[in-house]
Amino acid sequence: MVSAVNGYTASKEDLLKRLRRAEGQVRGIARMVEEDKYCIDILTQVSAATKALESVALSLLADHLSHCVAEASAEGGAVAEEKIREANEAIARMVRS
Amino acid sequence: MVSAVNGYTASKEDLLKRLRRAEGQVRGIARMVEEDKYCIDILTQVSAATKALESVALSLLADHLSHCVAEASAEGGAVAEEKIREANEAIARMVRS
Amino acid sequence: MVSAVNGYTASKEDLLKRLRRAEGQVRGIARMVEEDKYCIDILTQVSAATKALESVALSLLADHLSHCVAEASAEGGAVAEEKIREANEAIARMVRS
Amino acid sequence: MVSAVNGYTASKEDLLKRLRRAEGQVRGIARMVEEDKYCIDILTQVSAATKALESVALSLLADHLSHCVAEASAEGGAVAEEKIREANEAIARMVRS
Repeated sequence: MVSAVNGYTASKEDLLKRLRRAEGQVRGIARMVEEDKYCIDILTQVSAATKALESVALSLLADHLSHCVAEASAEGGAVAEEKIREANEAIARMVRS
Repeated sequence: MVSAVNGYTASKEDLLKRLRRAEGQVRGIARMVEEDKYCIDILTQVSAATKALESVALSLLADHLSHCVAEASAEGGAVAEEKIREANEAIARMVRS
Repeated sequence: MVSAVNGYTASKEDLLKRLRRAEGQVRGIARMVEEDKYCIDILTQVSAATKALESVALSLLADHLSHCVAEASAEGGAVAEEKIREANEAIARMVRS
Repeated sequence: MVSAVNGYTASKEDLLKRLRRAEGQVRGIARMVEEDKYCIDILTQVSAATKALESVALSLLADHLSHCVAEASAEGGAVAEEKIREANEAIARMVRS
């Protein structure tokens, strides 16, 4: 069952599109550095790429909570607790990064 | 004069290396999504890529303050004020992203 | 049932202790401004207070997912979906602030 | 000279007002916890207080760059370098918190 593996199946194409765009943004930033572009303009692009990645992370997490965590919680027990513990750790990493 | 254009000349190679690594990280994340990897493992990689970009931004900004802003401040006047205003805006974007 | 209202009952005393400490930190920052303390020293205290609040938020959210969301998911249906939707919105606000 | 000590003299009253409001927000959050308010509503208030502190930090830093750092840069030398180094460290703490 796919739902046991990941919760983002429905939004996979959308995630891939956003990740390829973010990859292009990072490549564009490297090109700006190579071409000695102005620091502040580069910083603007780095902030945009960071925001794009953050937004991918929020989508992944939302799908994860809606599917994996919800299903595990419906079954309960140690697996559910473990799922929630690792979701909390992932959220802490996101908030602190 | 290069210093009038950007403040990261001395660390350009290091910045490019880190940006190429970040680009590889983002490509790796897309591959994980394609291969239906586990959400939490993907989130860990997204946090790592975000942190890497944040750290590139902090380096760029540090170089910018040490060179462009310091030089403009030494000359003073409207250009110095404008440099500091745009640095403050870039910092606000970084803190809020 | 308390669990229907909130998920932080077990850690309530700890949360209150941390919030009173954060309140004292913010009051201390105001005093530093009043006494014309050095900007950078004030900024260090603001970062500490922000981190303290962030950590309170992560605890609250962890308790919320472990209790409210887990219980609602165990019952399923529209209530469970609503709980997860609002948790995701709260996480997005935390990540973006 | 006050400008040698801090750069926020002109906005001191405004900073104090915002800090007292933030202190009130944190006290309000403690009261919500005491009264067993709903986790998500508390989280909303924690995010608001965090944002308020972040915005105080950005104002302090902007004043610091415009005055202390600009003046030190105008004089140049080791003091200027030290000012910029500590500003960069403060920015890194803000971005990472």
